[in-house]
Amino acid sequence: MNNLQPKKEHKFTFGLWTVGNPGRDPFGEPTRQPISPVTIVKRLSELGAYGVNFHDNDLVPIDASAAERDKIVGEFKKALGDYGMTVPMATTNLFSDPVFKDGAFTSNDPRVRLYAVQKTMRAMDLGAEVGAKIYVFWGGREGAEADASKDACEAIKWFREAMNFLCEYSISQGYDYKFALEAKPNEPRGDIYFPSTGAYLGFINTLDHPEMVGVNPEVGHEQMAGLNFYHVVAQALEAGKLFHIDLNDQKGPRFDQDLRFGSEGIKNLFFLVKMLEEKSYEGPRHFDAHAYRSEDEEGVWDFAAGCMRNYLIFKEKARRFNEDKEIQSLLAEIRSTDPAFEPVPLKFTKVRAEQVKSMRFNRAELATKRLPYEKLDQLVIDLLLGVR
Amino acid sequence: MNNLQPKKEHKFTFGLWTVGNPGRDPFGEPTRQPISPVTIVKRLSELGAYGVNFHDNDLVPIDASAAERDKIVGEFKKALGDYGMTVPMATTNLFSDPVFKDGAFTSNDPRVRLYAVQKTMRAMDLGAEVGAKIYVFWGGREGAEADASKDACEAIKWFREAMNFLCEYSISQGYDYKFALEAKPNEPRGDIYFPSTGAYLGFINTLDHPEMVGVNPEVGHEQMAGLNFYHVVAQALEAGKLFHIDLNDQKGPRFDQDLRFGSEGIKNLFFLVKMLEEKSYEGPRHFDAHAYRSEDEEGVWDFAAGCMRNYLIFKEKARRFNEDKEIQSLLAEIRSTDPAFEPVPLKFTKVRAEQVKSMRFNRAELATKRLPYEKLDQLVIDLLLGVR
Amino acid sequence: MNNLQPKKEHKFTFGLWTVGNPGRDPFGEPTRQPISPVTIVKRLSELGAYGVNFHDNDLVPIDASAAERDKIVGEFKKALGDYGMTVPMATTNLFSDPVFKDGAFTSNDPRVRLYAVQKTMRAMDLGAEVGAKIYVFWGGREGAEADASKDACEAIKWFREAMNFLCEYSISQGYDYKFALEAKPNEPRGDIYFPSTGAYLGFINTLDHPEMVGVNPEVGHEQMAGLNFYHVVAQALEAGKLFHIDLNDQKGPRFDQDLRFGSEGIKNLFFLVKMLEEKSYEGPRHFDAHAYRSEDEEGVWDFAAGCMRNYLIFKEKARRFNEDKEIQSLLAEIRSTDPAFEPVPLKFTKVRAEQVKSMRFNRAELATKRLPYEKLDQLVIDLLLGVR
Amino acid sequence: MNNLQPKKEHKFTFGLWTVGNPGRDPFGEPTRQPISPVTIVKRLSELGAYGVNFHDNDLVPIDASAAERDKIVGEFKKALGDYGMTVPMATTNLFSDPVFKDGAFTSNDPRVRLYAVQKTMRAMDLGAEVGAKIYVFWGGREGAEADASKDACEAIKWFREAMNFLCEYSISQGYDYKFALEAKPNEPRGDIYFPSTGAYLGFINTLDHPEMVGVNPEVGHEQMAGLNFYHVVAQALEAGKLFHIDLNDQKGPRFDQDLRFGSEGIKNLFFLVKMLEEKSYEGPRHFDAHAYRSEDEEGVWDFAAGCMRNYLIFKEKARRFNEDKEIQSLLAEIRSTDPAFEPVPLKFTKVRAEQVKSMRFNRAELATKRLPYEKLDQLVIDLLLGVR
Repeated sequence: MNNLQPKKEHKFTFGLWTVGNPGRDPFGEPTRQPISPVTIVKRLSELGAYGVNFHDNDLVPIDASAAERDKIVGEFKKALGDYGMTVPMATTNLFSDPVFKDGAFTSNDPRVRLYAVQKTMRAMDLGAEVGAKIYVFWGGREGAEADASKDACEAIKWFREAMNFLCEYSISQGYDYKFALEAKPNEPRGDIYFPSTGAYLGFINTLDHPEMVGVNPEVGHEQMAGLNFYHVVAQALEAGKLFHIDLNDQKGPRFDQDLRFGSEGIKNLFFLVKMLEEKSYEGPRHFDAHAYRSEDEEGVWDFAAGCMRNYLIFKEKARRFNEDKEIQSLLAEIRSTDPAFEPVPLKFTKVRAEQVKSMRFNRAELATKRLPYEKLDQLVIDLLLGVR
Repeated sequence: MNNLQPKKEHKFTFGLWTVGNPGRDPFGEPTRQPISPVTIVKRLSELGAYGVNFHDNDLVPIDASAAERDKIVGEFKKALGDYGMTVPMATTNLFSDPVFKDGAFTSNDPRVRLYAVQKTMRAMDLGAEVGAKIYVFWGGREGAEADASKDACEAIKWFREAMNFLCEYSISQGYDYKFALEAKPNEPRGDIYFPSTGAYLGFINTLDHPEMVGVNPEVGHEQMAGLNFYHVVAQALEAGKLFHIDLNDQKGPRFDQDLRFGSEGIKNLFFLVKMLEEKSYEGPRHFDAHAYRSEDEEGVWDFAAGCMRNYLIFKEKARRFNEDKEIQSLLAEIRSTDPAFEPVPLKFTKVRAEQVKSMRFNRAELATKRLPYEKLDQLVIDLLLGVR
Repeated sequence: MNNLQPKKEHKFTFGLWTVGNPGRDPFGEPTRQPISPVTIVKRLSELGAYGVNFHDNDLVPIDASAAERDKIVGEFKKALGDYGMTVPMATTNLFSDPVFKDGAFTSNDPRVRLYAVQKTMRAMDLGAEVGAKIYVFWGGREGAEADASKDACEAIKWFREAMNFLCEYSISQGYDYKFALEAKPNEPRGDIYFPSTGAYLGFINTLDHPEMVGVNPEVGHEQMAGLNFYHVVAQALEAGKLFHIDLNDQKGPRFDQDLRFGSEGIKNLFFLVKMLEEKSYEGPRHFDAHAYRSEDEEGVWDFAAGCMRNYLIFKEKARRFNEDKEIQSLLAEIRSTDPAFEPVPLKFTKVRAEQVKSMRFNRAELATKRLPYEKLDQLVIDLLLGVR
Repeated sequence: MNNLQPKKEHKFTFGLWTVGNPGRDPFGEPTRQPISPVTIVKRLSELGAYGVNFHDNDLVPIDASAAERDKIVGEFKKALGDYGMTVPMATTNLFSDPVFKDGAFTSNDPRVRLYAVQKTMRAMDLGAEVGAKIYVFWGGREGAEADASKDACEAIKWFREAMNFLCEYSISQGYDYKFALEAKPNEPRGDIYFPSTGAYLGFINTLDHPEMVGVNPEVGHEQMAGLNFYHVVAQALEAGKLFHIDLNDQKGPRFDQDLRFGSEGIKNLFFLVKMLEEKSYEGPRHFDAHAYRSEDEEGVWDFAAGCMRNYLIFKEKARRFNEDKEIQSLLAEIRSTDPAFEPVPLKFTKVRAEQVKSMRFNRAELATKRLPYEKLDQLVIDLLLGVR
């Protein structure tokens, strides 16, 4: 099927840290050699990807000299050009180094908070240098194991302070970044502040520049809290706040698995892709996942190809859903009402309020309306499983 | 300990549906007789509660005639006066009747959506009549099992439309209500829209009257998603959006248990109470819980007394936490930094940005800062367990 | 596809309580009329089912007189005959009546424990009368909210005592029952004893007649604990203890959803069906699920048809998996080893122990073995989604 | 309180890997220096611990020469003698090295399976050399992400084969080990076979030497599946299979946290300690936990002291529970029944079966029995919080 071939226009992106993941985990040592950023750019391009994203230290080691940095960045930019790849998004590693052991923007130590801001400014410079327009914030260490150690309200204020400062920095530098905040409920901290995309949607409106800040929901992060990812993204999208998205997969509430997109939550991710394609989401389709630790490098590319393929399969199924007469007819029935009913627009006036208040409804009759959702859902299953 | 005696000033409230819960569950029939609203008012007052709250149909049956309604409300108001009880909060039952089988404000049927608005207007009238100033919305049926059946973005729009209409209604009637939105991730629906308090904080800012709308977080509802309730409430409180709170308890992600407050999540709820008491939360302390199904009516009152008692125990522990020299000294150490460090306020100017960007930090040294959180947390455990 | 047409030989069964579920839930009243057992037998037969199962009180009301009982049973047996349906399994309702509010076999009250035994004996008589050969025990109320109330070790002893007694009863009556124990972690009790199928596998060996007792794993019950159902059933099957199985679906740890089989956990349930079909499981394929509460009776039959259809789709996919050359070739590679390696059978002798102990392994080389699981899993996804 | 001072008689043990944990996690580098085994032995002894346990490679690096091994073991044994410490338990690291990337006893490669057996034999030799009598098996890599890759029934057979072989090895060497199997539902593998203690209880009876094999339940591992740890351990203890126990804490279903014992699940762990102390569990009280990553070495010892302290606090509370007249009187009431009721022993005879079957029970009356569990549970909360 030609439709399943990834192309630049699909805007598929991967992080350097995703295909570059060496297979270390809390109970085991690495199983794969690191892959150089240049190789990653080349191989992803060949597979049909549109771009790569990175944390500052995915590309430039935290201890690199200025000269080393420039050399690395130069080679990386050349590779981008050679292979026609972009960097739509950049971000900061504020979690690996022990200095962030108790948080970055929310560390109890004001020096660490300031260092985190500095590190982010420099990483924003780096991102801008390679053309990134989206800047993601994942506060992996912004949390606590022992709530006695930190006032959660204070932590929120510190986080806001940093965000406001960095928004201004982006503006003053003319970087034109969109900030995308990424939530996760826990891991590596016992609990992380702003544990869900919803929490960040609430937070954004308390910032000085809410218009330049949105969210970056990640499939697995929301599923770690047992949430319906399609619903989560719908809220962000409807509010005009879906600035980026992290696609992967997860087997429910447990450690963060970062599985190949579409390998587990089939039905939910089908509705996700359908919505992204139909509701004019224009941003990158970023895969924040990694190959099983048991894979070698060849398996890493299998993994990357599989992420894109599954997205395209769901996209193709969405098209068929819309063309399926039986499904569309059921949907029409479901959304219909009594033809004699005259709808009252819910635009408030005193007169209309009185009108609504005095309407007569036959509760028992309304309750009998047929809602053939089992049938409809089964047609979706048939469609997904390729048996219609 | 006198401090553990509930008094009106503590603002403890219960729902009619909480102590009135007859012990029916998905697998069993009721084990207790209903208790009349008047008896509930009397008994709760004797136990030291401040008020009672209700859904419209907790007080007035859905099929009551106008005369029946007036009689019931009259007797109820008399009981409130007789026993010095208030009704700080009211709400609408938009979930029990089969008419709401596919949602109320988000039903696919426009007639049901309109009926839900009508029912809420009438219930707002009833609440206002007994003096309620907070109006809670829990959208128990606003969700889906089969996402094919409803466009989640559309559902959000319908919900907003209803909210905006009802805000205007409250204003136009001079009811002066504060709306408090209550999230739950699932149950009774497979998934519920706006699954967490954070999601509602995000939603509120998309309304026409965000200033009159806040949240009503419930302990167990957030814990069903594995979230840290203290963190959840901190965000709402810090944002000025904690308009009401539902106190109960829960054994993690599973069915909604509504256990006696303080009977399970001891440490987390201690930090919650400490925050509520210290951060000027002035609203009611509402218990949205019920007695074990195995209790008789006497056990219901044991349950109610226990909820209030545990709140007061945590409040008393919070006082001691603040007076504990060792704890306070550890906190001072934790929050200290290098005295030679001159803090830079994170108020953006170009000059300051350059200043921050060029500061020199000794990452390795910063990382060695002692953070005795194990010791501090153990002192909290000692305090909670009464062994210091 | 003819393969997707349910037939008697597939041994599909439903409980009277499944298609008969009236749509009541903890927050709402019934949405459907009850369907009579006779109608259920007829309709299920028409859909291709093999049999129906029941709790005593699904068929005979708990307060029925002997005459009423006989009349009901007579009509039911006639319907079975008329429609060529069997009753492979029966069970006891030990959870609905308030008498069981604190457990049946584990109630603190010895009278209740005895009554539960009596009720089960009578229900076993009823099951035997209609030809049931499998007797399921789901201890829905055998648990606790407050562990102070009951010694968990004592509860286990009580449960064992009842099991042993009832085994003897079955033998002495010549009923020839196989007992199948069904685990669930919680709901309706705060926690239920023997929370997983594994726990029952452990328990069985402490009984007087372990040979006649096995397990009845239920998809959703294990998924409420986040467990991999395919793994759970594999253990039971491998141990010769899979006496019955409850097929449904569930969206992870939350309330017990009893969703249409195959509507959510597609990949996991595919491996389940593949195993059931290939490892000589001969028992019924029982669907313990119910239609969404929003359905009417027509939707109930859609639901039932969907359960069977999805089973057959997975069965058909399993056949193709076995015939797929690329998949089989990958599997062969995965299961291969160095041809020069001479396997040592792990049958202990002192000599062999010394031999194993002194073998030389090249750890680094062994670690490099290619394991193309991403590729293999993607082929499975392709197969499941019908794109190969 | 003198009762809170850890002493050798309490049999508190720690793993070298627990206090020795350097604070590395999936998102961050180590924050602490390694602590030498000799220092660990010394410091734990000073704190009142009874012993230390280890994986082979916690003590002897995987690449150590025979001479290095002997030197390390010699120094370690000297330290044990110097500080009066024992090694009650030993175990094998079958998870860190990349060779085990797809399992040890269940690897698809027969060479790896054999190597795992060899490594275990050698580690058993090492354990025996320092006097260990309990041998723990935690199969951290015995699982799968992609179920296509491995037949779960086959994996179980391989695991059994290894267990049987190693049992014989222990017997033939005269090591007199008790094997204790430790379950975990997932992490680091997507899913792990034998996901709960119950699953291992079921498995043990399929072994050649079930009498020498029991379980090693770990608090956090069962809570990752949302299970009630007190119930889990009760089943093992009642079956005579509690051979070892891993004490720590966990905030519900999420990554494996290994928190300080008693820092989270207060009430549940109180009932656990009460049972361990009262039901003649004679084995070590092993803490399988580690300090927060933000601690320095001093904090590690605070952490270790806190684990033991909390155990002793719960033990002391258990004593008071037993001496509390109001609690005991409530328990007596709860366990009472109608004095006129003549209990029927559930020891089967045909006559007794008839007797039970024909007894008359007044279901409605039995259902009214008062069960004051809310009151009882609140007394437990009062006791735990030190307010009675």
